[in-house]
Amino acid sequence: VVWRSKYIAVDWGNTNRRAWLLGEDGSVKADFADGLGFSSLSNPCFESLIAEIRDRLGDWPMILAGMIGSNKGWHQTDYVGCPANALSLAQNIYWVEAGRTGIIPGICQLGHHPDVMRGEEVQAIGALTTGLVARDSTMCHPGTHSKWLDIKDGNIQALRTVMTGEMFKLLHSSSILAEQMQEAKHDHKAFQQGYERIISGEPLLSALFEVRARHVLQHNPLEGRSFVSGLLIASDVQAGLLSAISSGPMYLIGQSDLCGLYKIVLEAFGRAGVILDGDATFVAGVHTITQELL
Amino acid sequence: VVWRSKYIAVDWGNTNRRAWLLGEDGSVKADFADGLGFSSLSNPCFESLIAEIRDRLGDWPMILAGMIGSNKGWHQTDYVGCPANALSLAQNIYWVEAGRTGIIPGICQLGHHPDVMRGEEVQAIGALTTGLVARDSTMCHPGTHSKWLDIKDGNIQALRTVMTGEMFKLLHSSSILAEQMQEAKHDHKAFQQGYERIISGEPLLSALFEVRARHVLQHNPLEGRSFVSGLLIASDVQAGLLSAISSGPMYLIGQSDLCGLYKIVLEAFGRAGVILDGDATFVAGVHTITQELL
Repeated sequence: VVWRSKYIAVDWGNTNRRAWLLGEDGSVKADFADGLGFSSLSNPCFESLIAEIRDRLGDWPMILAGMIGSNKGWHQTDYVGCPANALSLAQNIYWVEAGRTGIIPGICQLGHHPDVMRGEEVQAIGALTTGLVARDSTMCHPGTHSKWLDIKDGNIQALRTVMTGEMFKLLHSSSILAEQMQEAKHDHKAFQQGYERIISGEPLLSALFEVRARHVLQHNPLEGRSFVSGLLIASDVQAGLLSAISSGPMYLIGQSDLCGLYKIVLEAFGRAGVILDGDATFVAGVHTITQELL
Repeated sequence: VVWRSKYIAVDWGNTNRRAWLLGEDGSVKADFADGLGFSSLSNPCFESLIAEIRDRLGDWPMILAGMIGSNKGWHQTDYVGCPANALSLAQNIYWVEAGRTGIIPGICQLGHHPDVMRGEEVQAIGALTTGLVARDSTMCHPGTHSKWLDIKDGNIQALRTVMTGEMFKLLHSSSILAEQMQEAKHDHKAFQQGYERIISGEPLLSALFEVRARHVLQHNPLEGRSFVSGLLIASDVQAGLLSAISSGPMYLIGQSDLCGLYKIVLEAFGRAGVILDGDATFVAGVHTITQELL
């Protein structure tokens, strides 16, 4: 069985490509990351991009996850339905070359609230495996499209996507607020004012206009970028908590700066946040999934 | 006194310029509208644009309102504080030429929730004058930046701006949902699904992603433009109702198509909506304000 050897794990997303050479016990032997995410590729030749990864890390079997399996990626893989776990993901790996190059599928939720996810499920499995996360818990992956996952008895039970990062980019680049959102440094006071507006029940779409009103009135002008960030992250957390099945700490997985902001807001909502490393949970997740192939 | 004669009223906004020649009793003698709103002007010569209006309607005194008084307009006029009424607006008219060419100021709200408005206050005064609206009531002006006004004892007491139309444009032109928002015809079923999501407590930023999820899953795909319109209008109405002091009907002032959609959503929230004509209320408002000058 091929997985009784070293192998390569690849997290190929929109912004970055990360690859790790793993020992058969899942330990990291080598790794690299570069900016060849999907947003920087046009008409890519995936065969040669994959070969290049093997040139750098060795000619080993390879498991990929993330946007590489989307309709904008190399091969569109199916979505596994909820509840999902390492076994159902392993059983639905899309084999580009049998036993040698496989893509982990995404996860979907049908029914009244259809939703999809691709990449974060691997981190979720990894977080569970390492024992860092309770078998009944809620996780949040902050980002362009934040993902909230409910875990029940070790299975991914439900998901909710919140368009937080994308909304921030739209407002920051193209809205009437853009001019007031250009401060270089994060301003904690404005950030706090932002999340407190949402916690006190102010609706997002009207709270946003405060940036404009204060600017026009020259009345206590705001650092708009930080304020809007507070509004949006609090709206995200509010949405995530709405259906969270766990009353314990929320596990935040991803980039540490962003997770740190979410942790502050979670605490303002009266909930604890625990930050987990995105890369480490990804590697652990791939290893758990590949073990199901043995 | 100049207002004991015919005079010209001008509503000069972002998209359009509208002008009416009024008799001394406020009746409309002539009018025109064109597309010379601010978004189509670059480095305009306002003196000649104003002269052209008099060429068309006669050499009469002129009162203007709307974006013409903003920092992007001809002369930036102050904002009158809440509570505001016809008298406080009349007293703060900015006279470009005394007694001959004046700009009605905007309205502002300071304190915990700073907000501003420019143009809609004239329609609000007009709606009150005509007796169509109770002296304690709530009005909504749907648009790029929707304005909700609380009227107490005939004064404009409080305002709330909701960035509904702007958010719609951002999502429609630049978001990941844009491709699924291009249907040509309003689809009532999708619109209804949208507003029902918000009424049932679904948060806006996660409800939006349903358009994407259904598209990717090919699962009961949505007419995204109508669905997002339902989500946003319901979020707007929810924000407006939050602080509405009146339990009576909400008065909707503006473009009749858009007001019609708001009326449907208001009714779904269990509230009645009464649609008032934007042009007629503007003309009545200018006349009421100029009467305070006598």
